[in-house]
Amino acid sequence: MHSRIGEIIEVAAMCGVNIVCFQETWTMPFAFCTREKDPWTQFAESAEDGNTTRFCQELAKKHNMVIISPILERDELHSTLWNTAVVISNSGNVLGKSRKNHIPRIGDFNESTYYMEGNTGHTVFQTQFGRIAVNICYGRHHPLNWFMYSLNGAEIIFNPSATVGALSEPMWPIEARNAAIANHCFTCAINRVGTEHFKNEFTSGDGKKAHHDFGHFYGSSYVAAPDGSRTPGLSRTRDGLLVAEMDLNLNRQLSDKWSFKMTGRYAEYAEELANAVRHDFKPHVVKE
Amino acid sequence: MHSRIGEIIEVAAMCGVNIVCFQETWTMPFAFCTREKDPWTQFAESAEDGNTTRFCQELAKKHNMVIISPILERDELHSTLWNTAVVISNSGNVLGKSRKNHIPRIGDFNESTYYMEGNTGHTVFQTQFGRIAVNICYGRHHPLNWFMYSLNGAEIIFNPSATVGALSEPMWPIEARNAAIANHCFTCAINRVGTEHFKNEFTSGDGKKAHHDFGHFYGSSYVAAPDGSRTPGLSRTRDGLLVAEMDLNLNRQLSDKWSFKMTGRYAEYAEELANAVRHDFKPHVVKE
Repeated sequence: MHSRIGEIIEVAAMCGVNIVCFQETWTMPFAFCTREKDPWTQFAESAEDGNTTRFCQELAKKHNMVIISPILERDELHSTLWNTAVVISNSGNVLGKSRKNHIPRIGDFNESTYYMEGNTGHTVFQTQFGRIAVNICYGRHHPLNWFMYSLNGAEIIFNPSATVGALSEPMWPIEARNAAIANHCFTCAINRVGTEHFKNEFTSGDGKKAHHDFGHFYGSSYVAAPDGSRTPGLSRTRDGLLVAEMDLNLNRQLSDKWSFKMTGRYAEYAEELANAVRHDFKPHVVKE
Repeated sequence: MHSRIGEIIEVAAMCGVNIVCFQETWTMPFAFCTREKDPWTQFAESAEDGNTTRFCQELAKKHNMVIISPILERDELHSTLWNTAVVISNSGNVLGKSRKNHIPRIGDFNESTYYMEGNTGHTVFQTQFGRIAVNICYGRHHPLNWFMYSLNGAEIIFNPSATVGALSEPMWPIEARNAAIANHCFTCAINRVGTEHFKNEFTSGDGKKAHHDFGHFYGSSYVAAPDGSRTPGLSRTRDGLLVAEMDLNLNRQLSDKWSFKMTGRYAEYAEELANAVRHDFKPHVVKE
């Protein structure tokens, strides 16, 4: 994987790319379907000084490129695992990390077996090329997740994912695009491709027989803009590099035109939400 | 308008419709582009006992149909105007009303000249045919608005609108559909049709010459389901009645499958949002 990504980064550099983001847990098969800890947890690495981060640091410095590297993170202090995006500055320094905020419990996505909800909140990273944030995979289904990155000032929100066709494909063209519109920002929906096979059979909690593969990761990565437009998608079956030029002025232009944040009444929502999360919350329902 | 809607309701009754929702401020031209108070404010009526509500009560009782009637409301007590949806039970009683929560300031949508943000919160109405809510027009751009109706238990959220092609059409197929997915509920995006002409010329704040019409209301009403599917849209140019059968069990089935509310971490968001609305809020931005 390092060698394949190295080739792709070379091409990205030739295209003048400033910021690149890989797919979710890009260094490993999406093996969480198996529920086997061994050998998959061996892919976990330190976000700050693991081999993959060092590899990306070299590339970032060499090509003056910000690199977002989503990995399976091992927190060395407590040996806790996390699903984490490492953000590496174009200087080659690790700018920080952003952990996956929402963990799925659906079908073969047994990720809650391996790691917990992230504790890095909604950090935004100021880079030379814009303020960026990372909403990992399943977090794209949560409008509040996109929203809170935007409230912290994100101009581009990346969504590195690993998702399969039978499950999420009808939603894929909708969610990141809606997030770009609603938050006056750019969003990048990124998915892996291919069908991953595992040696040991596993069941999928759907009453069907045990099997060896994890469906089809449908690719179709795209970039969405705050005006509702989007790029074509990458291939459903082959890997690739999507290069998009973003004029970040468009964010403010759209905001000045539509004013969603100005008209958002967030103070009222903060109160309503604080009330709604109480265990004794009474929904406001009118009956005859 | 009463006679035209009467005809449409007769057809709806023949189709066995249980709940019907009209377009935003359905009794009048969308005259807010003119910024003239007279004669347009004369269309305002009491939500509880105006002529239009009485007309709808008769139809509701006659056809055993819940009717959502969005009007320009005159609050008789203070003579305040509101943009309001009146919800009439199939018994013929007024179940309640829901005022527009978010008011646009964009192009010819000079609605903030006429009425203010609503004060009815995110009320849900328990009807014989399901729990319903009304997110009026511009509120569809605000994911939090859909979300809060859903937290109060809405199974179907209606979005009566009046919006024109040059402005919002690229966003129209995205927003209500995303709301249905994200909130495990059905949504109904409803728009008026036609080009409305006004006797007195008006400008649009876009540097162009004064003119007499308000662009093209593009119709295209549709219903979206929580699984990402949607109905075809109604015509862009002719009025019509869209009849959709909704199996409300799908909401819980999708929720049990995807679990967005269970994984939503709303307590954390309530805290973050309360912090973010403070005037001295410091966004969480990491710099090198």
